[in-house]
Amino acid sequence: MKAAIIAIGDEILIGKTLDTNSNWIAGQLDSIGIDIDQIIVTRDEEQYITEALDRARTECRLIMITGGLGPTNDDITKKVISAYFGRPLVFNQKAYDHITSYFCAKGKEVTPTNKLQSELPENCIPIKNIFGTASGIWIADKEQIFVAMPGVPFEMKPMVTNELLPMLNDHFDLPVIIHKHVLFAGIGESFLADKLSEFEAELPPAIKMAYLPSNGIVKVRLSSRGEDSQLIAESIDAQVTKMQSIVPKYIFGYDEDTISEVVGKHLASNDKTLAVAESCTGGYIAHLITSSPGSSEYFVDSIIAYSNEAKEEWLGVDPEVIEKYGAVSEEVAKAMAQGVMIRSNADYGLAVTGIAGPSGGTEEKPVGTVWVAVTGKDSVYGKRFMFGNERMSNIVLTAVNGINLLRKVLIR
Amino acid sequence: MKAAIIAIGDEILIGKTLDTNSNWIAGQLDSIGIDIDQIIVTRDEEQYITEALDRARTECRLIMITGGLGPTNDDITKKVISAYFGRPLVFNQKAYDHITSYFCAKGKEVTPTNKLQSELPENCIPIKNIFGTASGIWIADKEQIFVAMPGVPFEMKPMVTNELLPMLNDHFDLPVIIHKHVLFAGIGESFLADKLSEFEAELPPAIKMAYLPSNGIVKVRLSSRGEDSQLIAESIDAQVTKMQSIVPKYIFGYDEDTISEVVGKHLASNDKTLAVAESCTGGYIAHLITSSPGSSEYFVDSIIAYSNEAKEEWLGVDPEVIEKYGAVSEEVAKAMAQGVMIRSNADYGLAVTGIAGPSGGTEEKPVGTVWVAVTGKDSVYGKRFMFGNERMSNIVLTAVNGINLLRKVLIR
Repeated sequence: MKAAIIAIGDEILIGKTLDTNSNWIAGQLDSIGIDIDQIIVTRDEEQYITEALDRARTECRLIMITGGLGPTNDDITKKVISAYFGRPLVFNQKAYDHITSYFCAKGKEVTPTNKLQSELPENCIPIKNIFGTASGIWIADKEQIFVAMPGVPFEMKPMVTNELLPMLNDHFDLPVIIHKHVLFAGIGESFLADKLSEFEAELPPAIKMAYLPSNGIVKVRLSSRGEDSQLIAESIDAQVTKMQSIVPKYIFGYDEDTISEVVGKHLASNDKTLAVAESCTGGYIAHLITSSPGSSEYFVDSIIAYSNEAKEEWLGVDPEVIEKYGAVSEEVAKAMAQGVMIRSNADYGLAVTGIAGPSGGTEEKPVGTVWVAVTGKDSVYGKRFMFGNERMSNIVLTAVNGINLLRKVLIR
Repeated sequence: MKAAIIAIGDEILIGKTLDTNSNWIAGQLDSIGIDIDQIIVTRDEEQYITEALDRARTECRLIMITGGLGPTNDDITKKVISAYFGRPLVFNQKAYDHITSYFCAKGKEVTPTNKLQSELPENCIPIKNIFGTASGIWIADKEQIFVAMPGVPFEMKPMVTNELLPMLNDHFDLPVIIHKHVLFAGIGESFLADKLSEFEAELPPAIKMAYLPSNGIVKVRLSSRGEDSQLIAESIDAQVTKMQSIVPKYIFGYDEDTISEVVGKHLASNDKTLAVAESCTGGYIAHLITSSPGSSEYFVDSIIAYSNEAKEEWLGVDPEVIEKYGAVSEEVAKAMAQGVMIRSNADYGLAVTGIAGPSGGTEEKPVGTVWVAVTGKDSVYGKRFMFGNERMSNIVLTAVNGINLLRKVLIR
């Protein structure tokens, strides 16, 4: 049971509009066991749409088109479909009823332009659009189903959720599909792949594995499909348990977890608070943590201490320590974490000091050198990282690895 | 001169990962006059990649592939390309040199898995990856060019900007295309469009105009293409000058400017410094400002003051003022800005206090209510904003509008 999405729109092809529709539709169909085989983005022109339909139908039983269903002249999808299937546009009473009730709810009259929207290809089924006047179109052609939907996300999404998914479930005999994501921090993709190479080789053939790295985090996805959801879930869970035994210390969560949420939940459930002192990350750690709703429960006030003066006056770092070891050092990182924890009256302190670049590096401490420290009531940990040359990447990697060090201290 | 993008990745087709790469690449190529004709998203499997290559090459002279170049077993792009063009994978000294220098800079040894990455299709040109170990691949096959690049955005983007665009410019005879972006803050897209409707109607036919709104900023792009770059540039500049006279006070910059960089340059060139006190933005303003290289010149130390205690103790806000007006009020915002400016010994103070949500709103001060204040040596400005219900959007809009208020104070 293969499917294709055809997204129509010149604005996507010149990079002006990001095609979020295809991604969203793919996720919805995946959740009911329909595989998207291909996504084709093509132009608002008959020749291109026809070619995309030709291609998609050689492989797929379900073909979905988004975009080009509006009332204006540049919306040509309906005409192209009508010509493609040789089904003339005819007045469709059900579509007209939708449009009338849509305008009626707004206390408006149906305009002639909008009345034209109730003309649909002969023998199609209109799909209700509760937030607009363009009906979706469902055409059954031999063994294949063609669906056309508006490109406006707030019209298309409820159409998929409320109308299309139930129609697809009724029409096709669908399998069960389950994905599980295991999330890693503190280890690069290639190092993790080395540790998991034997595990991967021994996976049952029904389970597929993929690495999805981004911004200092590596997601490993296990997926499988079949008939019996409980059996599939159990077989994936067994592999996750095996993976946990191989690389326990790098796993910070599963599926939709983020590392700052994981740390936040840990703090909240233990009734603990955190204060942060940032130098090279300039507020990014605080931003990641406060992006979670409810973070004011555990995130207390924090300091961005760029200058040595602030490190001394606000965080109580001994000027002699800065003088002796330098601002980017284990000793200063630890004193910053201690200082912000004490001054904020928090249970934990997290501090980072480093050289984000592009300038400020020395031979001994090149750009990308970072010290991270975490303090608790009677413990202190420091760790050095050597990242790269790119400022934003250094900021992001420092933040993720700093939060990860805190996580390791919390779960000790 | 038509081009295609093939994005490889099962995670896109199951809706887990949004394909932002194709969009970004399309925008870059559009800027040098290459039209993207189609974007095909396909699976990590040989058969699918081969089919996508077959399709793309019937129409396009340039075919770019992203994704599947990593070191792990599920990264098959290189093998597929090698088989497709009948060019065996052979050790490539140039690629190996890149990998070695990448690891060397990090003080690490090249692992066997990474050494394998220097095997590339015979007679290809490796494209340098400064932020990773997977070389890009450039293959000339008869009249066509095939390019493969990593899928990780922070590796792919500098590869395109620094390496691929110059290579494409050398190889193809491209038209001249000039874009100019005018950047607006403090005004919404539809209000701006109303003010510019007459301007747009009077534009010369050769100049196209587009609105690109995102995160509280509206970019207006003017573009034109032709043979003579100087003539095109002059005709666009004339329109920019006209636009400046219509809506001067909302324009904060041009092209790649960011509002935090514009403010930063203004501070740096006047030898002034800034301190920030953030409540509801939780570090995001500091993050935006410190994302600019060289920001330590003008950004001094700042405070993230979530609690009333921190507002009082660290920023010197009078507890009676908080009691009387509430933490989210003009008076408290101004006192926070004043407090952080004085305590940091900065020339300007910027403070925000508000309710980001999802909880914490009241009937009088609903979620989305924000006060922003800016203080100078002998001036103080406050402004209220009413944003929406969504936490991340409130954080981003508060930050952008806060920095914009500072900008307006600076240019007075």
